[in-house]
Amino acid sequence: MLRLYDNHLSGNGYKPRLLLAHLGQGYQRIELDILRNETRTPEFLALNPNGRIPVLALEDGTCIAESNAILHYLAEGSRFLPSGRLDRALTLQWMFFEQYSHEPNIAVARHWIQHVEMTEAQRAQLPVKQEGGNAALAVMERHLGEADWFGGEAMTVADIALYAYTHVAEEGGFDLGLYPAVGAWLGRVARQPAHVPMNPAPEGVVDPAGPPG
Amino acid sequence: MLRLYDNHLSGNGYKPRLLLAHLGQGYQRIELDILRNETRTPEFLALNPNGRIPVLALEDGTCIAESNAILHYLAEGSRFLPSGRLDRALTLQWMFFEQYSHEPNIAVARHWIQHVEMTEAQRAQLPVKQEGGNAALAVMERHLGEADWFGGEAMTVADIALYAYTHVAEEGGFDLGLYPAVGAWLGRVARQPAHVPMNPAPEGVVDPAGPPG
Repeated sequence: MLRLYDNHLSGNGYKPRLLLAHLGQGYQRIELDILRNETRTPEFLALNPNGRIPVLALEDGTCIAESNAILHYLAEGSRFLPSGRLDRALTLQWMFFEQYSHEPNIAVARHWIQHVEMTEAQRAQLPVKQEGGNAALAVMERHLGEADWFGGEAMTVADIALYAYTHVAEEGGFDLGLYPAVGAWLGRVARQPAHVPMNPAPEGVVDPAGPPG
Repeated sequence: MLRLYDNHLSGNGYKPRLLLAHLGQGYQRIELDILRNETRTPEFLALNPNGRIPVLALEDGTCIAESNAILHYLAEGSRFLPSGRLDRALTLQWMFFEQYSHEPNIAVARHWIQHVEMTEAQRAQLPVKQEGGNAALAVMERHLGEADWFGGEAMTVADIALYAYTHVAEEGGFDLGLYPAVGAWLGRVARQPAHVPMNPAPEGVVDPAGPPG
């Protein structure tokens, strides 16, 4: 059975959870407490030397790190990864955009505001994160003026990657009311059959045939 | 003919240049001056609303942004992208690592030190960038203690992505002497046939059959 090393507050962890629900694939979820440094133990660093969740452990113990690489792995052969060369590249384009221009601003601002006592340096950096996050949301708004989805004609892993932290951007101090096309797209993603919310995250073994237990 | 919107100082731009050289594929290189905001003009934003180079324009005008998505597109069907599902995912894992944990520290520190007059805020952030960059180099060093390459049994786009800013990390104040396995890997990459240096970047049309002209 697949094992997902995860944290219930993490949008990066939510990405594979959401895709696994869409794929109807069972897995075992293992919660790690980031704030208590459970991702920096020797045992966890043996799974991912970069010390971050999520990590997907395959049946044979092989581990894949980086949320968007995990999405790509899980989605192969499914409708969530386009089969055409150009659409696959554009799907990856938006996933790299997410990790470079979106997540480091929106997810980090949310983390600072919601989950930690901000240091003075973080408080000084917050306006930079707000500016960067709004720039990323404006790029998304522009794209969604011309297209319904990010990776092709239907929902793909690019949409899942971008949904994870966009739908909780207001927890990072962002006003999604400024981005109506983004708001409409968030609704399209959430209305897909098999959609699951970020929280509560399922505990233990997730059986797609029944309720999480 | 493929067109590459690029800047000669950019490691992200160097990535597709290096891969195109390995593939023996011609292209037209278009230099943009980032410091003079040539990537923020309406004309360029029509190519990439995120306002960043590199951008690869295909023959039909379709544009692909994000250096690692461009690498993935160009490498499809070549020996630089593994064909197995797991190796492809691990290649992407390292490419996302590069854009999240490596480039924002090592490339940004290099940019601040080499190319701009640092602001007070940047000067205050520099130690954070140094710490993050050294952590990324340590993760690479650990991997290279067990493997020769990042994406499989031979050089892949993951190696090209990581080489771009690692080989100039000393310009960002990093001591590569602390990472001997990284140093040996840099040498392996640079000794590949068809390798080209980051600078001088070729001007205009690059003809793989002859010298850049």
